[in-house]
Amino acid sequence: MKTALRITRAQNFADWYQEVIKEADLAEHSGVRGCMVIKPWGWAIWEHIQARLDAMIKATGHRNCYFPIFIPIELLAKEASHVEGFAKEMAVVTHHRLVQRGGALVPDAPLESPLVVRPTSETIIGEAMARWVRSYRDLPLKLNQWGNVVRWEQRPRLFLRTSEFLWQEGHTAHASEVEAMEETLTMLGVYRRLVEDDMRIPVISGEKTPGERFPGAVATHAIEAMMQDGKALQAGTSHFLGTNFAAAAGIRFQDRDGTEKLAYTTSWGVSTRLVGALIMTHADDDGLRLPPRVAPTHVVIVPILRDEASRHLVLDAADKLSAQLRSGTAGGEALRVELDLRDDAPATKRWGWIKKGVPICGRARPARHPGPHHRLHPARCDRGEAQSAACGFRRERRPRGRSLRRDAVAPGDRVSCGADSRRHRRLRRVGEAFSPGRGGRVCHWQVVGRSQHRCEAG
Amino acid sequence: MKTALRITRAQNFADWYQEVIKEADLAEHSGVRGCMVIKPWGWAIWEHIQARLDAMIKATGHRNCYFPIFIPIELLAKEASHVEGFAKEMAVVTHHRLVQRGGALVPDAPLESPLVVRPTSETIIGEAMARWVRSYRDLPLKLNQWGNVVRWEQRPRLFLRTSEFLWQEGHTAHASEVEAMEETLTMLGVYRRLVEDDMRIPVISGEKTPGERFPGAVATHAIEAMMQDGKALQAGTSHFLGTNFAAAAGIRFQDRDGTEKLAYTTSWGVSTRLVGALIMTHADDDGLRLPPRVAPTHVVIVPILRDEASRHLVLDAADKLSAQLRSGTAGGEALRVELDLRDDAPATKRWGWIKKGVPICGRARPARHPGPHHRLHPARCDRGEAQSAACGFRRERRPRGRSLRRDAVAPGDRVSCGADSRRHRRLRRVGEAFSPGRGGRVCHWQVVGRSQHRCEAG
Repeated sequence: MKTALRITRAQNFADWYQEVIKEADLAEHSGVRGCMVIKPWGWAIWEHIQARLDAMIKATGHRNCYFPIFIPIELLAKEASHVEGFAKEMAVVTHHRLVQRGGALVPDAPLESPLVVRPTSETIIGEAMARWVRSYRDLPLKLNQWGNVVRWEQRPRLFLRTSEFLWQEGHTAHASEVEAMEETLTMLGVYRRLVEDDMRIPVISGEKTPGERFPGAVATHAIEAMMQDGKALQAGTSHFLGTNFAAAAGIRFQDRDGTEKLAYTTSWGVSTRLVGALIMTHADDDGLRLPPRVAPTHVVIVPILRDEASRHLVLDAADKLSAQLRSGTAGGEALRVELDLRDDAPATKRWGWIKKGVPICGRARPARHPGPHHRLHPARCDRGEAQSAACGFRRERRPRGRSLRRDAVAPGDRVSCGADSRRHRRLRRVGEAFSPGRGGRVCHWQVVGRSQHRCEAG
Repeated sequence: MKTALRITRAQNFADWYQEVIKEADLAEHSGVRGCMVIKPWGWAIWEHIQARLDAMIKATGHRNCYFPIFIPIELLAKEASHVEGFAKEMAVVTHHRLVQRGGALVPDAPLESPLVVRPTSETIIGEAMARWVRSYRDLPLKLNQWGNVVRWEQRPRLFLRTSEFLWQEGHTAHASEVEAMEETLTMLGVYRRLVEDDMRIPVISGEKTPGERFPGAVATHAIEAMMQDGKALQAGTSHFLGTNFAAAAGIRFQDRDGTEKLAYTTSWGVSTRLVGALIMTHADDDGLRLPPRVAPTHVVIVPILRDEASRHLVLDAADKLSAQLRSGTAGGEALRVELDLRDDAPATKRWGWIKKGVPICGRARPARHPGPHHRLHPARCDRGEAQSAACGFRRERRPRGRSLRRDAVAPGDRVSCGADSRRHRRLRRVGEAFSPGRGGRVCHWQVVGRSQHRCEAG
């Protein structure tokens, strides 16, 4: 069977992963070892993941803030004193000027004390919390930060392991142990909802073994996502830090009873690695497939411009259809519709969108007979809603049968729901809105032919 | 006259500026020289500025992406070869490991070639554009990036000049000179709309003199904002780079006629400095004042809990009012309402909110008589809309007369619209929605007493 990608999963999973990224134009390696350039389509997916998670972080009472990218070496020294054979791969800044000398650029003006580019912000945020927290009235202090961090990687892989990556790191301080433990699990639950409900990636969540704990944590909880090669990928972690970090940073507060106590702290984070998880869960040998909630574009319309006579009619119809679709909604959000007017062959454009994983890609063709004999009906099959677009389009002839997997709890427990009915000639791609937890349903987007068909859930 | 801040503008403008930031809890200096911690209230303002600008950047056809934080020294060397006596204040990374040796942490594993933390991304984005652009079909290429940059500062000032700051940088490539010049002015217009319409800061926009141009630019346009001390602050720049940067990076394309040509490029940016401009334009001796469009919270309700008997009633009423207000909108957005239930004295809370610049801070008191004799009516006076909240509140007794300045084109051309009518005993703070350009109107938020009054525009 012919596939859109040159390399299939069966041939070489690791190479196929790179190929999906390249063909979907998500990211590429930069000239800086281990650092990637996230291209617009990849970045837009991350932006949608961010927006969904940010709303949940705020809804659970956290506030965003921003701490410096540089960590003074003295703060790390405190941490290092607890760790046997401390050695960390991180970017060390030693100078603050670059000058031209003898035809070359050389570092100048050495810093009194080197700085490191943050690998995580526990130390610098802990130091601030120690300054900010005085009384039980200042607690809980629930902070989150979106930013970039650097951990030098010898064997980088796009999105999965890069020297610089983007993430959010939550840091909270609480007056009681119970509250801090609750916080740790609340955020694990938020991650689970993000990854399962919005990204359609089945996960197993639970506590890590002592050997896999974040250094200094009392308990580390994680969500592990199951990839198509049967391997688990750690997709998010939430740490209960007890009073260990508070003791090191001096986060103390005067309690209601007048005594001074150490605060209990937590930290939790997810990163651009989630985009890697998305690819390894949903992509197939034809390229990426995006769950609608994090798809930058839901529907693309590619006009087929055969001749000058029909050109105006087709463009006008496609324009009307886009406008009509844009006023629709999917999962409470406005439908994101793109009319692809680039100066390129329609087949090239269409296959480009398929490899990018856009949920619906429809072609707008001139009608065979004058008048609106043929119609394009984009429909949300999980709701039974359908919008009719009487714009003189021909129905989509080539059915595509790729759909998202069901929620699977055991690795390898995959169910394909994409069997197409020849009779209906549906174009369907990428499910939406299955109920969280086991037994969820995968529902389909579809563009149906001349008449509207009843919707089905897989 | 007693003021909420210890230092007034008349006493010392620079110290007053620091005091506003401290009392509004916007940001603070960190232990890292020149780097600031942006605290939740300051960050939330920046998030609202970002959201507004990001929408405008996307609406003008740009796509966000992300480039590495590190720039290889070889890329800068290319640029340096054009610059006499090149010397730049930037953070230079020379090692990629930190190890413990003799009780101290020391840098280890020197890089073959040092990296700098990006002071701007022209070089690394230019290099990518040279790879991505092949044909006229790839143009225009309109990219934007939100991120952090570092330029070592010897004399840092919070938000205005910091070693690390956050910004967006737009980088575009075009097939024609005319299109690139149009782009430069389009983005200058976007900045003007952001700063004037959303942030209520009057600006003068125009082209900089050759001596003030961005090095290598053909023309640099800027918006200059007028501060209360009569000084101008550069609030945003947009550069037309001609083919200078394209020639250095090798951004060439095959045009429709088959010939190879150099692309025309532009770049443009605004930064967290805008928060500094906001403060120096709108704050007064009682603290910050926020224009509603970028205010993290529009309305705060502080319940006055006198005794246990009325406690439940007041909290219940305040809760209802918050819910009612939250379903309202301001300028097309949902009203952002906070019910302040912190365990603190009401006066402390209220003055805290005033110093933070929240547009409306109302107190929910027990009614003097049983039943809904007194009402709180929060009203949008620029539209004549009013929401009645029959929750048994007493009307606000202390009128506050601070409002935003009119659009001023000349420095010092300020008009205060806050004269309170004793008869109406209005509580009003912070204007909203004046028409852009000269002669715009300042309109008021207000909370009026027992009966609703007609709205006025200043």
